[in-house]
Amino acid sequence: MSGQVYVTRRETFAAAHRLFKDGLSDEENFKLFGKCSNPNWHGHNYTLEVVVAGTVNQKTGFVIDIKELKQIIRENVISKVDHKNLNLDTDFMKGIIPTSENIAIAIWKQLYDKILNGILYSVKVYETENNYFEYKGE
Amino acid sequence: MSGQVYVTRRETFAAAHRLFKDGLSDEENFKLFGKCSNPNWHGHNYTLEVVVAGTVNQKTGFVIDIKELKQIIRENVISKVDHKNLNLDTDFMKGIIPTSENIAIAIWKQLYDKILNGILYSVKVYETENNYFEYKGE
Amino acid sequence: MSGQVYVTRRETFAAAHRLFKDGLSDEENFKLFGKCSNPNWHGHNYTLEVVVAGTVNQKTGFVIDIKELKQIIRENVISKVDHKNLNLDTDFMKGIIPTSENIAIAIWKQLYDKILNGILYSVKVYETENNYFEYKGE
Amino acid sequence: MSGQVYVTRRETFAAAHRLFKDGLSDEENFKLFGKCSNPNWHGHNYTLEVVVAGTVNQKTGFVIDIKELKQIIRENVISKVDHKNLNLDTDFMKGIIPTSENIAIAIWKQLYDKILNGILYSVKVYETENNYFEYKGE
Amino acid sequence: MSGQVYVTRRETFAAAHRLFKDGLSDEENFKLFGKCSNPNWHGHNYTLEVVVAGTVNQKTGFVIDIKELKQIIRENVISKVDHKNLNLDTDFMKGIIPTSENIAIAIWKQLYDKILNGILYSVKVYETENNYFEYKGE
Amino acid sequence: MSGQVYVTRRETFAAAHRLFKDGLSDEENFKLFGKCSNPNWHGHNYTLEVVVAGTVNQKTGFVIDIKELKQIIRENVISKVDHKNLNLDTDFMKGIIPTSENIAIAIWKQLYDKILNGILYSVKVYETENNYFEYKGE
Repeated sequence: MSGQVYVTRRETFAAAHRLFKDGLSDEENFKLFGKCSNPNWHGHNYTLEVVVAGTVNQKTGFVIDIKELKQIIRENVISKVDHKNLNLDTDFMKGIIPTSENIAIAIWKQLYDKILNGILYSVKVYETENNYFEYKGE
Repeated sequence: MSGQVYVTRRETFAAAHRLFKDGLSDEENFKLFGKCSNPNWHGHNYTLEVVVAGTVNQKTGFVIDIKELKQIIRENVISKVDHKNLNLDTDFMKGIIPTSENIAIAIWKQLYDKILNGILYSVKVYETENNYFEYKGE
Repeated sequence: MSGQVYVTRRETFAAAHRLFKDGLSDEENFKLFGKCSNPNWHGHNYTLEVVVAGTVNQKTGFVIDIKELKQIIRENVISKVDHKNLNLDTDFMKGIIPTSENIAIAIWKQLYDKILNGILYSVKVYETENNYFEYKGE
Repeated sequence: MSGQVYVTRRETFAAAHRLFKDGLSDEENFKLFGKCSNPNWHGHNYTLEVVVAGTVNQKTGFVIDIKELKQIIRENVISKVDHKNLNLDTDFMKGIIPTSENIAIAIWKQLYDKILNGILYSVKVYETENNYFEYKGE
Repeated sequence: MSGQVYVTRRETFAAAHRLFKDGLSDEENFKLFGKCSNPNWHGHNYTLEVVVAGTVNQKTGFVIDIKELKQIIRENVISKVDHKNLNLDTDFMKGIIPTSENIAIAIWKQLYDKILNGILYSVKVYETENNYFEYKGE
Repeated sequence: MSGQVYVTRRETFAAAHRLFKDGLSDEENFKLFGKCSNPNWHGHNYTLEVVVAGTVNQKTGFVIDIKELKQIIRENVISKVDHKNLNLDTDFMKGIIPTSENIAIAIWKQLYDKILNGILYSVKVYETENNYFEYKGE
């Protein structure tokens, strides 16, 4: 069977972060970011959904072997964010305010070139059960 | 970082409703709407997902501050539907059969002008865990 | 294999209700029950979990055939509450304030004698994703 | 009210399957499909989401009566896959490697002509809570 | 801090199974087990919750290191059931009708002696999102 | 209707923490706590379930008004842990290794005296979707 299928892999990671801008006081940061600017950090169990689009390989029935996709995500993203501080520990977030908008874009950049079967279509970051953020390379 | 991000806020509300058309008998309404036309009403825990699309503000890392989005939804929608009767109590549903299709469209109209950072992209209404309805302004 | 196993069946129903006491004014009811006393009703997607305890039948490997348990719950409970008004339509709730505490107890009474394989152990009612109520016949 | 709404119906089914290619040895199949090629089968609780797009009927407020959509899915899909072996029992999967990519495409073909109110927009198959596959007829 | 805490680890596995008794015909098995007796197997994504009870170790703040508990479950249970056929492939299910009642009891026996920090308190098996089975060694 | 009912309120909070013992080096703490000892912190979306047991008040149909229970939890727990660092910011966690076992016990102590309708029965802390911890005052 042929046709384009969208394959989603879901992963989770637990990280600390803080929203603030260098050069602003704690009060100014609180005004801009509210309780998310708490100087002693807070954290989340993030859920990450990565979507790859592509045609189905007739030999295997896969767009991309989900084990391969899982491995790419773990090597390039999860290993750098899980049980880490997104402001201090994660190389691909250096100098970036770690809002979920920016996390989604940064993860996109981190993954785009690594996916060789199919093409990266969407990165979705769930910060809480009520707040989600999706980036599609636009 | 720049690029267009889709920001989703999830809210819930509990409401009563009944599907029926004025001028039809209970029997005729039952034929059209089944058990959803029960004259003594029934109700749901609705889940609402509102998606706003926009470019990321370089100063804050936000498309729209999620607290602002939450506030807009609560003021313009939740306060008018939660623990209410959608047929009798909700001004923006007056004269409209409260199917989830129509609820999604009515919430879109209720929110569209209120969102000033980014633009409303989608309104999704979950009536039960098995039935969802999405409107994107098309 | 022998031993006592606890078998849970999950069902859902959508119903309208209102918390109020006869003889009180709307204002007095609002003071007692808040927005749950809205005179025009509101509603919920209730989730019901029924737990039956018993020893495993060596011939079948079942405590109770889950299809039988499902049938008992649907006949005695779901058919009387789904797409109904708990105050007006449900015989086994007549004269009872339909708080989830009272709904759980009433469902217990409704089911207790009908379960012939194993014994009713618990009735759990989820009113929303944040509020649950369990009755164990104590 | 008018406009195009996307209506989603969620169903579940439990099935056995095995990923393998005729003519390959068990070792060769293991190399291609890993533990999914286990000769004695394995299985999943699949979740299926079917999305129908269409304009809202002014008389009913529906795009498609969700009871009708549910009936179409159960007759044409669920009855053929639930508590079945996808490789051996399901007519519409004959000769197809039952990856979730291929299952989604096959379900699409199974449903496309049966939907007379609105048009089939998407078929989404959840193989596990971490792996999802969507086909949109492209 | 001291006191007894109940620690739960959740794991999942995907397996095929069939409910039947040796010596009965397919018709007789169908009468006893319904569609669960399909000769070509079916399968589930099982969810397993293992609860260990114990006092908190003052040095670590743990009852049992959750990594240790996860390792015990994976070695003794998951490796023997995931992507397997419970009737044919799983040594600790040999000769046992693989109802979820019996699976829960068999997993209890498999784990009881392996847990050295704290004591096994409960094994819960979710066959579907609607059917759960718990064994507590009674 | 009378009888003892168990009322559960679910709340969530997002916090940073680190597992370590004063006086140990980072290496020694890593040996004891693994990646949970990361010096730059990490964090979680914790889910908290608080269960109150009591007989149903005949006048209201409540064991405890769920709004009252919610208020008690928010004042005494959520306000002190949400968007905070459990090691540095939370008074009732001072000097305690913030494992989920210890968090559950500390929240129990924090709430026990505040609940005047019914009696505290259980505190359950979900650290992730796979790890839960319950304390019942034993």
